[in-house]
Amino acid sequence: MEQRVSVVTLGVKDLGRARAFYEALGWSARAAPDDDVIFFQAGGMVVSLWDRQSLAADSGIHDAGGYGGITLAHNVASPAEVDAVVAEAEAAGAAVTRRPGTTFWGGYSGAFTDPDGHPWEVAHNPHWTLDEDGSVRLTP
Amino acid sequence: MEQRVSVVTLGVKDLGRARAFYEALGWSARAAPDDDVIFFQAGGMVVSLWDRQSLAADSGIHDAGGYGGITLAHNVASPAEVDAVVAEAEAAGAAVTRRPGTTFWGGYSGAFTDPDGHPWEVAHNPHWTLDEDGSVRLTP
Repeated sequence: MEQRVSVVTLGVKDLGRARAFYEALGWSARAAPDDDVIFFQAGGMVVSLWDRQSLAADSGIHDAGGYGGITLAHNVASPAEVDAVVAEAEAAGAAVTRRPGTTFWGGYSGAFTDPDGHPWEVAHNPHWTLDEDGSVRLTP
Repeated sequence: MEQRVSVVTLGVKDLGRARAFYEALGWSARAAPDDDVIFFQAGGMVVSLWDRQSLAADSGIHDAGGYGGITLAHNVASPAEVDAVVAEAEAAGAAVTRRPGTTFWGGYSGAFTDPDGHPWEVAHNPHWTLDEDGSVRLTP
């Protein structure tokens, strides 16, 4: 198995609401308005939105609801950008679960959950390299 | 917020066990043996392993255990590769939650959960482009 992730699928309750949230953050989907799965090209991978019950069934596992121990992160180039993205998410309807501030690992970050409760950390990590195209690189 | 994911962090109960599982799949971490977070460079993003309770607290949300409605996918170039990767995961200790087979969307895939219950789909999607470097591209 190669060392990569091709798709992160977020299970959602209301596809229209979820799509509108990510579009309010500036994302652009490649999907027709009546598609039942929404795909966002995200660098060399894809983020998709799909009915959560269908996703759990397709994954072959039981879903009791709640958090599943996976958090996504979005890295940016400065603490000021962290503040800006968290504010943008809040304006789009996210719940801010941790206000931006300095972190124990020497960076600066905040966290929010999307309308389906999926958590995102928005982070500035001075120990990593953030490429022009948005890729992150472990240093060295 | 740019249209990308920088990090997917999987919350784990036993970091050594989780790391050994992914290393058994052929992944290579950039971490010292006693680090409490494990980072895998995965294309232009990073997959990390961290204590699940710490991750939930850091994300600012309640964790009742179980599945959280997020499934990762690993795309490969052929149905035979799907079979091979699922067999490799099973040999490494994964639970196969859906045996490989043709899918309703015209592809071929199977699914497994890692030792912490995080689900992965292994898929061949003939409608998407899989680049030499492992990137997936929505077509066109």
